[in-house]
Amino acid sequence: MRQAGRHFLQIPGPSAVPERILKAISLQTIDHRGPDFAEIGHKALAGMKTIFKTEQNVFIYPSSGTGAWEAALVNTVSSGGKVLMYETGHFAFMWSNLAGKIGLLPELIEGDWRGGADPNQIEDRLRADSQHEIKAVCVVHNETSTGSVSPIEDVRRAMDAAKHPALLMVDSISGLASIDFRFDDWGVDVCVSGSQKGLMLPPGLSFNAVSDRALENSKTVTTPRSYWDWQDMVGPNQKGFFPYTPGTNLLYGLIEAIDMLHEEGLDNVFARHSRHGTATRAAVQAWGLEVLCARQGQESGVLTAVKVPEGHSADAFRATALKHYDISLGNGLSKVADKVFRIGHLGDFNDLMLMATLSGVEMGLDKSGVPHNAGGTQAALEHLKAA
Amino acid sequence: MRQAGRHFLQIPGPSAVPERILKAISLQTIDHRGPDFAEIGHKALAGMKTIFKTEQNVFIYPSSGTGAWEAALVNTVSSGGKVLMYETGHFAFMWSNLAGKIGLLPELIEGDWRGGADPNQIEDRLRADSQHEIKAVCVVHNETSTGSVSPIEDVRRAMDAAKHPALLMVDSISGLASIDFRFDDWGVDVCVSGSQKGLMLPPGLSFNAVSDRALENSKTVTTPRSYWDWQDMVGPNQKGFFPYTPGTNLLYGLIEAIDMLHEEGLDNVFARHSRHGTATRAAVQAWGLEVLCARQGQESGVLTAVKVPEGHSADAFRATALKHYDISLGNGLSKVADKVFRIGHLGDFNDLMLMATLSGVEMGLDKSGVPHNAGGTQAALEHLKAA
Amino acid sequence: MRQAGRHFLQIPGPSAVPERILKAISLQTIDHRGPDFAEIGHKALAGMKTIFKTEQNVFIYPSSGTGAWEAALVNTVSSGGKVLMYETGHFAFMWSNLAGKIGLLPELIEGDWRGGADPNQIEDRLRADSQHEIKAVCVVHNETSTGSVSPIEDVRRAMDAAKHPALLMVDSISGLASIDFRFDDWGVDVCVSGSQKGLMLPPGLSFNAVSDRALENSKTVTTPRSYWDWQDMVGPNQKGFFPYTPGTNLLYGLIEAIDMLHEEGLDNVFARHSRHGTATRAAVQAWGLEVLCARQGQESGVLTAVKVPEGHSADAFRATALKHYDISLGNGLSKVADKVFRIGHLGDFNDLMLMATLSGVEMGLDKSGVPHNAGGTQAALEHLKAA
Amino acid sequence: MRQAGRHFLQIPGPSAVPERILKAISLQTIDHRGPDFAEIGHKALAGMKTIFKTEQNVFIYPSSGTGAWEAALVNTVSSGGKVLMYETGHFAFMWSNLAGKIGLLPELIEGDWRGGADPNQIEDRLRADSQHEIKAVCVVHNETSTGSVSPIEDVRRAMDAAKHPALLMVDSISGLASIDFRFDDWGVDVCVSGSQKGLMLPPGLSFNAVSDRALENSKTVTTPRSYWDWQDMVGPNQKGFFPYTPGTNLLYGLIEAIDMLHEEGLDNVFARHSRHGTATRAAVQAWGLEVLCARQGQESGVLTAVKVPEGHSADAFRATALKHYDISLGNGLSKVADKVFRIGHLGDFNDLMLMATLSGVEMGLDKSGVPHNAGGTQAALEHLKAA
Repeated sequence: MRQAGRHFLQIPGPSAVPERILKAISLQTIDHRGPDFAEIGHKALAGMKTIFKTEQNVFIYPSSGTGAWEAALVNTVSSGGKVLMYETGHFAFMWSNLAGKIGLLPELIEGDWRGGADPNQIEDRLRADSQHEIKAVCVVHNETSTGSVSPIEDVRRAMDAAKHPALLMVDSISGLASIDFRFDDWGVDVCVSGSQKGLMLPPGLSFNAVSDRALENSKTVTTPRSYWDWQDMVGPNQKGFFPYTPGTNLLYGLIEAIDMLHEEGLDNVFARHSRHGTATRAAVQAWGLEVLCARQGQESGVLTAVKVPEGHSADAFRATALKHYDISLGNGLSKVADKVFRIGHLGDFNDLMLMATLSGVEMGLDKSGVPHNAGGTQAALEHLKAA
Repeated sequence: MRQAGRHFLQIPGPSAVPERILKAISLQTIDHRGPDFAEIGHKALAGMKTIFKTEQNVFIYPSSGTGAWEAALVNTVSSGGKVLMYETGHFAFMWSNLAGKIGLLPELIEGDWRGGADPNQIEDRLRADSQHEIKAVCVVHNETSTGSVSPIEDVRRAMDAAKHPALLMVDSISGLASIDFRFDDWGVDVCVSGSQKGLMLPPGLSFNAVSDRALENSKTVTTPRSYWDWQDMVGPNQKGFFPYTPGTNLLYGLIEAIDMLHEEGLDNVFARHSRHGTATRAAVQAWGLEVLCARQGQESGVLTAVKVPEGHSADAFRATALKHYDISLGNGLSKVADKVFRIGHLGDFNDLMLMATLSGVEMGLDKSGVPHNAGGTQAALEHLKAA
Repeated sequence: MRQAGRHFLQIPGPSAVPERILKAISLQTIDHRGPDFAEIGHKALAGMKTIFKTEQNVFIYPSSGTGAWEAALVNTVSSGGKVLMYETGHFAFMWSNLAGKIGLLPELIEGDWRGGADPNQIEDRLRADSQHEIKAVCVVHNETSTGSVSPIEDVRRAMDAAKHPALLMVDSISGLASIDFRFDDWGVDVCVSGSQKGLMLPPGLSFNAVSDRALENSKTVTTPRSYWDWQDMVGPNQKGFFPYTPGTNLLYGLIEAIDMLHEEGLDNVFARHSRHGTATRAAVQAWGLEVLCARQGQESGVLTAVKVPEGHSADAFRATALKHYDISLGNGLSKVADKVFRIGHLGDFNDLMLMATLSGVEMGLDKSGVPHNAGGTQAALEHLKAA
Repeated sequence: MRQAGRHFLQIPGPSAVPERILKAISLQTIDHRGPDFAEIGHKALAGMKTIFKTEQNVFIYPSSGTGAWEAALVNTVSSGGKVLMYETGHFAFMWSNLAGKIGLLPELIEGDWRGGADPNQIEDRLRADSQHEIKAVCVVHNETSTGSVSPIEDVRRAMDAAKHPALLMVDSISGLASIDFRFDDWGVDVCVSGSQKGLMLPPGLSFNAVSDRALENSKTVTTPRSYWDWQDMVGPNQKGFFPYTPGTNLLYGLIEAIDMLHEEGLDNVFARHSRHGTATRAAVQAWGLEVLCARQGQESGVLTAVKVPEGHSADAFRATALKHYDISLGNGLSKVADKVFRIGHLGDFNDLMLMATLSGVEMGLDKSGVPHNAGGTQAALEHLKAA
């Protein structure tokens, strides 16, 4: 039986793609070597600099975000080099895993998955590395598996305090264009991102923002690479072109997305995500449930991970909500599998869509017999009225 | 400044058009005289019979619903002929107005705009018409200006009881495909409808379902007509064609819409609209406001008209809701202008979209200072949980 | 078996709809009574004035062109009034037929279907009408059934020479936006047009351009009317609205179409159609076939009707071309049924598309055994090279 | 000034994307971890096996074809390993270049760019490699820079004759789904392809078809890899999922493309490309120009590279054709830069589109003053008539 109305895709990415972007990506493909393409290339590259808030370098890959993780590492650290990572959650773990697979030596500072990276721990570790064997510090900005935000600026300060030359590499795949990020101001060296979160596109494009220092450094890095090689990008990019066939139709969408973000204003975008995070937590509290992120001030505006009471299955609840209310919620990953569900409130989203989402969660909790207090929906509504 | 997320078009039509239909209408136009067109014509005509629940005749016009009102009259009543109408609200009044403009003599039974047509009054009037001067009885099924439903089957019984030969003509522009309608079972002679309500299309197509008796009768009707003439349609329609250029792209969408309705099941569609009507009224009651439709059992599943307290402006409230929460609500028309607002809950719509809608109404009431009790949203949610 | 590549829709309308317009019409429908709609209404109405080249009045109907024919007559001539028409071909005949159906007295000057209307015959007839019983002179600008163009400016001069007060009414359904038309300069009183020809839209919108004189005159016209009534349009149109639900999504497309025409420049649009008409006739001549339009200087830039040799079936040829080369050509209508085929070269069309079209015709002639000389395609190509 | 009508994108890929596919890729993105996704994953993977004609393995990457080149190598040859390549043209050269960049030792057999790979040379080289240091033989099936086809089956025979255990790796980025390719029958071990040629999609997906032997062998290959690692794909693919976020919207399009190819029939697709190649060469011959591919029987059905007479600029000609006739033609690459232009006749293409294309080439030659004989267009037409 057909379900009426719109599906609510409330996983923490891909986010629902707005009509304007879907129309843009369905324009006819053009010759990526022809004279009309340069404008597209220039707009996409220059536009992404305004999103990363950088005047340095941006590279765009036809790949998913995982590819941009790999790109960040192979261009910065020679085979066998050490990278320091912080286990904010599943994705931080996966990134360190990837580093190992491609021949680097990742060192993972253990975390409890309930907050962002701890700058003090990073500083301590760097001070202990008197030989400067650590080539890069890798931190996840918005940990998609937990809904926690790392204080990137503080990590930079910690590195500076330790007087350590490692590069600061940040994964903001799910944070960029939803919560504040400032590449240049914060002294980031490489930022990894993807198209299907705050940028509101389907998956298929990924990004590296790169500091001049990291780009210069990459010339001496010996890790074999071709597809991901920044140096091959520089020349063609300057003319608005790419060294190999780009994802033309997604680039159409990217330009539209950048326009949409600026039409709303990045600060308004950030305030909106923050408001929705707070309202969601008001609902969770009223339901008598617990938010996974336990560190105040580090809760994400992108998604909220919610713990279900012991003895109940988060996945069974999600299946019920999907079946009866046509809403997709995110699952708990690895350590928290079946113990949490994740509410995505990112991308092209507004107050009424949030209320629909929270209504779907509350009805799903009710229908699947997860113990909770009714009224979280109204609590969120009251929060939004006051905001 | 751009508003993020989806606009909520919650007027009682046009309803928001689903993606499947938007894609269908954007297919390339084909030759409406060519061999491939016949399948489209046949599918649209046969499909509409399943929606009207008739095995008699359906005609499709490239026009808005107003045109189909005119078509219904010019094919059934000769110039100067009498038609009996019942003032359920603004649209019943407008239809009688149109009858006068095209040279007929409409007689309008006054109503209070707070319920459907009264079969007893109709029966009395018909009994008094011993000369059978009244050629047609015209009733609005779902009065879009008030949110009331007329008991069509009872009107038919009243006409039969009065042993009056007048044709029964029904406007179900906003009722068809949202609330139960049975052309053959109920003994309707002409039903007028349009594309932009329960059929989920953009405006631009309109319909006449026509009984064999009315079609035969039309041969003797002398009112001049060309565009609307049923007789010109019959021959071409039998082969899947039309006497003049049809609205090809909207027909693509119509076929898709009919498929979607049957994929869900018409009974499920009706139950859904009914549930949403009830939930909306639960919210209105909890807000301490009054529903315009005052006759129990005649409240519409398509829309709910809500009275604002004396001294407050429904239109100011609507403007506030639109500005702050990006939701379009219907205005009060003529007699009830600025005194009511109308919540559309029709078309391709589901529980979460309703909750979004009611949240928007409640936040709008709050923001615009219309006196009300908070909590209507949660009241509707409780209703949906229980449903 | 699926046929690869694009279908060539080379009938004389509907013309193939460009991607930009298909995308525009698939945008979400909005509230046609809401504040955002006014801009759409204003743009559509003001834009159409630039296409008609008038500073007087334009009305837009959600209907096909046949409706606009009816609208032109019911607003200008009271029931029983005389209209003088000129039989340029099938569509002129159909218009006069319609006039009869709605209660007017059409008088049709016979024509041979091989050229435009003859101003001298019209002048003679008007001079003979000393009682001024003729209320309107109706002429088809571009006769879609024959590919001939009537000299509208000369018809106006003839009417003036005869000092006759009748209104000049022109059908430019297939001429507007493809060949030169100047409402104000040429002294036209009513021009009828439709969306699916030079305007490149799907069918479903139609137009009346109306002189101030005709609009004023309509107040005294007694023919019953409602849907088509100009007077109901005037007030709402001034605010960017319509008296009943408009064809919102086609209006989106119309605005896009008007932009596209001005981006190319109307004079360039006309020159392009003229060049393609000439090139097509060069092909026809090289094939040794005959163009239906026999009056030099009146051949249409919109379409070319071609006679097939006696004893051969134009329809069999068309079916062969469609089956083997996926090209739709127009059929001969009524008097010339099966004797001519029509090549549409209108709308969003360019030199290479014309060459594809003529290649399809030549291959179709060859495949279906219609006697002709090979080489028409190359002849057209040489013409285009020289142009 | 806007150019009317459709742009003709006649480069040898990306090919013009058909409407059906553009609509498919603009459907809303869904949860790639949710229950509905599995059907999409299964359809895409199983469907690609029917296109490669294999019952072994297919992997799909969100990347352009260059990524699939890299994937083929990093999964099959350990760092420092030797690969034998054959210089059929620019792309064969680029692939060998890539092999060097990622730490392999490519050996390139020189070619004259005027035909496919020579199996005899390959056999001789393999026989000389008695130590079996060569781990893979890499051949381009359809060389996009020259329009020549390599005899893959003969290469396999040559390898067998030499009793050499190297893997046979084939680039059929521009050949697949346009000209005959049989992965299993021909004994290929890895075939690399991309979405934007015969598969008619925008760029952004790439493919590896992989023999069981190559997949088993990959377990022992030590080249570091993560994004491209086949082994990570196997498990998730079996359930219809991917190890990281896939290019969901392009997968929608891929499924549509596979359906379209089978609706036409692969053999019909191949026959169509072959017919268009022959017709194009008939035109080139009539123009008195020379086709770059000089080996009879190895001319491509995908594209035709044409030499311009000495002293003339192919690029100036292409710019003229683009400006005046809105047709994009492919440029000459590296060794043949400015000396050849390439006519793409691949993808969703038909006889009339080919005639449009050749007309554009002939008009462009004329306009830009490249010496040639008129009449190539008609020569191609005569060929198509006879076909």
